[in-house]
Amino acid sequence: MPSYTAPTKDMQYILHDVLKVTDQAIPGYDELERDFTAAILEECGKLNSEVLAPLNVVGDTEGCVLENGVVRTPTGFKAAFDQVREGGWAGLDMPEEFGGQNMPYVIATATLEMFAASNQAFAMYQGLTHGAASAILAHGTEDQKATYLPKMVNCDWTGTMNLTEPHCGTDLGLMRTKAEPQEDGSYAITGQKIFISAGEHDMAENIIHLVLAKIPGGPEGIKGVSLFIVPKFLVNEDGSLGARNGVACGKIEEKRGIHGKSTCVMNYDGAKGWLLGDLHKGMRAMFTMMNEARLGVGMQGLAQADVAYQNALAYAKDRLQGRAVTGVENPDGPADPLIVHPDIRRNLMDQKSFTEGARAFIFWGATLIDQAHRNSDADADGLISLMTPVLKGFLTDKGYDMTVQAQQVYGGHGYIEEWGMSQFTRDARIAMIYEGANGVQALDLVGRKLAQDAGKHVMAFFEMVKSFCKDNADESMEPYVGPLKQASKDLQAAGMFFMQNGMKNPNAALAGSTDFMHMMGHVCIALMWARMARVSLDALANGTPDPDFHQTKLATARYYMARQLPATAMHLARIQSGADPVMGLAADQF
Amino acid sequence: MPSYTAPTKDMQYILHDVLKVTDQAIPGYDELERDFTAAILEECGKLNSEVLAPLNVVGDTEGCVLENGVVRTPTGFKAAFDQVREGGWAGLDMPEEFGGQNMPYVIATATLEMFAASNQAFAMYQGLTHGAASAILAHGTEDQKATYLPKMVNCDWTGTMNLTEPHCGTDLGLMRTKAEPQEDGSYAITGQKIFISAGEHDMAENIIHLVLAKIPGGPEGIKGVSLFIVPKFLVNEDGSLGARNGVACGKIEEKRGIHGKSTCVMNYDGAKGWLLGDLHKGMRAMFTMMNEARLGVGMQGLAQADVAYQNALAYAKDRLQGRAVTGVENPDGPADPLIVHPDIRRNLMDQKSFTEGARAFIFWGATLIDQAHRNSDADADGLISLMTPVLKGFLTDKGYDMTVQAQQVYGGHGYIEEWGMSQFTRDARIAMIYEGANGVQALDLVGRKLAQDAGKHVMAFFEMVKSFCKDNADESMEPYVGPLKQASKDLQAAGMFFMQNGMKNPNAALAGSTDFMHMMGHVCIALMWARMARVSLDALANGTPDPDFHQTKLATARYYMARQLPATAMHLARIQSGADPVMGLAADQF
Repeated sequence: MPSYTAPTKDMQYILHDVLKVTDQAIPGYDELERDFTAAILEECGKLNSEVLAPLNVVGDTEGCVLENGVVRTPTGFKAAFDQVREGGWAGLDMPEEFGGQNMPYVIATATLEMFAASNQAFAMYQGLTHGAASAILAHGTEDQKATYLPKMVNCDWTGTMNLTEPHCGTDLGLMRTKAEPQEDGSYAITGQKIFISAGEHDMAENIIHLVLAKIPGGPEGIKGVSLFIVPKFLVNEDGSLGARNGVACGKIEEKRGIHGKSTCVMNYDGAKGWLLGDLHKGMRAMFTMMNEARLGVGMQGLAQADVAYQNALAYAKDRLQGRAVTGVENPDGPADPLIVHPDIRRNLMDQKSFTEGARAFIFWGATLIDQAHRNSDADADGLISLMTPVLKGFLTDKGYDMTVQAQQVYGGHGYIEEWGMSQFTRDARIAMIYEGANGVQALDLVGRKLAQDAGKHVMAFFEMVKSFCKDNADESMEPYVGPLKQASKDLQAAGMFFMQNGMKNPNAALAGSTDFMHMMGHVCIALMWARMARVSLDALANGTPDPDFHQTKLATARYYMARQLPATAMHLARIQSGADPVMGLAADQF
Repeated sequence: MPSYTAPTKDMQYILHDVLKVTDQAIPGYDELERDFTAAILEECGKLNSEVLAPLNVVGDTEGCVLENGVVRTPTGFKAAFDQVREGGWAGLDMPEEFGGQNMPYVIATATLEMFAASNQAFAMYQGLTHGAASAILAHGTEDQKATYLPKMVNCDWTGTMNLTEPHCGTDLGLMRTKAEPQEDGSYAITGQKIFISAGEHDMAENIIHLVLAKIPGGPEGIKGVSLFIVPKFLVNEDGSLGARNGVACGKIEEKRGIHGKSTCVMNYDGAKGWLLGDLHKGMRAMFTMMNEARLGVGMQGLAQADVAYQNALAYAKDRLQGRAVTGVENPDGPADPLIVHPDIRRNLMDQKSFTEGARAFIFWGATLIDQAHRNSDADADGLISLMTPVLKGFLTDKGYDMTVQAQQVYGGHGYIEEWGMSQFTRDARIAMIYEGANGVQALDLVGRKLAQDAGKHVMAFFEMVKSFCKDNADESMEPYVGPLKQASKDLQAAGMFFMQNGMKNPNAALAGSTDFMHMMGHVCIALMWARMARVSLDALANGTPDPDFHQTKLATARYYMARQLPATAMHLARIQSGADPVMGLAADQF
């Protein structure tokens, strides 16, 4: 069975050496001393490796079962969920007035990585709840906040997001679920929603559904969509639970993975709901959840890649097969370990350089969110808004690829379920799809985010790269800064191509949208590796007591630069071929 | 449920317009008239779309079940296998004296694509049998051939390959299964083999196992391995079945996919076996099967990509979601079909340009095999030997990627098993692993095949590309020949880098082996697309009655050149970074 060890040392390095969190003028960051974060990470790591990771395969094997309208979660999930509640993990970054601990998002992010790595399916029950609570926090009335948040912050009640219907996923304007105004100010919600994560389960007293629906007679399409709070059990004035609401799980989907998470068809039959936020502004309110959810999904890409890598690495060190081409390395054994072989090493280095780089990228993104929220910094808000589709789309595409590569290290055993490597790929696959399929992320990036605020944020990003390169022009940094500069130049050339051609023909830009998203992801990770190289070069120059750690960082940075970053030129060439190759056929010529 | 339609029109185009089979001076090719191959392909296509494709999901859902030593195949498999026998499909290219039809391998290849596409798991029962029969044909005594081949050629008896043991996959020198000589000239085989495809099942009267084992006291390692014929039921002098042999299936593996195919742990307990081929030359005999098997596995990559593409395309035309950015295209509907969106189009074009290019590549490879076997042409033999790891490794890596992209077109529905797209990715995944994991293919290519016969075959390949480019220097061919030239130049530069650096440090070559395999795959497919472009340009110039077909070919060729071929520069850049980035860390620094 695979195992998981929380990468606390690397997390500490990123938080303190790279991001230097206590130096940042963000409220709450001054408390994030090295010892304090170490204590949190160690504690959370323990819970994840000892309790949740062993349940990962249980969840996969048993799955969720629907019987008589009740969904039974896998053996051990309920007790483990109680442990998450007891530890206060779910509300780490939630306001204290509702039972949270008001910690910065960046530290919550570190714990989220562990949850997403040890047991992605399990983590989603709390993840969805966090998203729903955030939406109520941002858009709810004082009454709504008081009614739901104290219970939701620590997952006594869990939450859901209800968007998709059988005939509409991305195009929510086609939605048919209706919300009819009632005399008491509530709405009667009727319709069917599909793919509802944690829509029904046995781990919480109540489930608070956030449901998109249309009020009859409202504006057509997406402009007529509103968001509603629909609790599974109605809540009495005194906070106690009342009657069962008119919402039920009709079916559990048979999925490729994340079997421990119930994915429900939810039927709303005149269920009582209350408007959350403004009338017909449902998408705006939903986006509060979705941006957070998208970052969380990007995290799943990294997290599954990391746990898969940990196990692939252990196997590569343990499994004896063949001899090193440069001479026997394990003379006492019948063969050398897999890790001596260059192609296995390439595979492992791909994984290592991705996961460590992606971790820095996401943690940096989390500091932008803190800066945006805690300091009301519009520039940081704009930058993270630009980065969100990259974090979601690029990290899940690559994260999935890395789980497949990790599986490959196991040879035939990787294809056998009992070794556990298959589950990582099956679970990671969904992250490329939900919360906006990655093609939609690319469209969001190129069709919307690039031009947002007159292109201010993407220009700020280029400026940031440029000024980093300028500040680190010393020779020791050349192996890192040189490739970063080139990749950034490629990215700018792609942006220029879009500007020059996209106005005339939007397809010329959109045909290259996925390529652009990948280029930008590479440049972001390269920037992170260059920053880490700076830190580790300095540490070595200053006589760090842990030179091996920093030398390993430098070697891994050089790997990313040499072996991953050349992808930007390929993406640029594809982009510059424009719309014609992509749109060359009429639909009926296929 | 997904469906499958055999691409007979495209196959005919490749056989007759591109490869011009009847013009080739290969015995048997003169019979391959257009009408004749059409009849075969239509008939085989019918069997595959109507009988085998509907059983694909049945096989996936039911799987194979082991009870009391007997393996039960999924409902309908047995009857379908009888239909394959009745049609004579299994022995299409086998000698007439053993009940085959002695047709060229190229036409068998076309039918194999259909079998591998409609139902990969099912196809393996006949595929393994074909491989085992080929080994007996090549290395068996007259007695052995007479005993086994008449029954195996048409799958009355099926065959298996037994290589892997729990502690050794690639490194077969570690093998422990032993073969003890008996007084009657037979051997007693004892040991455990794992991952044995079709090792036990209920679709044939007898199963003929080909088993690698070591004779005690023989040479150490791989040089002491011999190959044995071990039938499930001993065969009496008169050809009737005798006693059950000492071999049994101990377990069926729980795999990620190809559930319809039994993957068995086989226990040999003093089973009676007979030496096949020369003593201690088991690997040589086994390789007769493995080269064929590798081509067949490469075919699985293409085949699964094709069936996944067919279904993704149908979904993209049918599913209404969003509006085209350039203006409404389906004004009468609530939304436009997915296929209007540039990123969906990019995805589909990736799939289309891969599958059609890969088909030409494999069919061309099959003509090389015919030329090698039927004309005893050593150059053709050397060239296909060079191409085998590329056909296996590149086509299965890419084929898998394409099934994942096809799944992505379905959005959330792609993750739900009932839509069937998940199965294509799960089934396709194994092809990257078995018959030599793709890293081993890359090692075979760079470490062995490039230098084979003093590099003669790779030079011949470069010469072939060069002379094609020279013969097609007219302006209309520039969009195809230009990119092909550049990609071929990249490939040669990579080869040059290996020559200059690999002697000093083998890791400098092996670190780039997977990249080289991919580069070479791209150049081969680009050569195929350039050849197809020539054919279709000429057809259009000559007033073909089907201009739409040929224009579609040209547009798809341009797509491959513009959007896939830029990968070669990336692979070259990686290769030229040498061994240092890949081997920069000591094993314990990971």
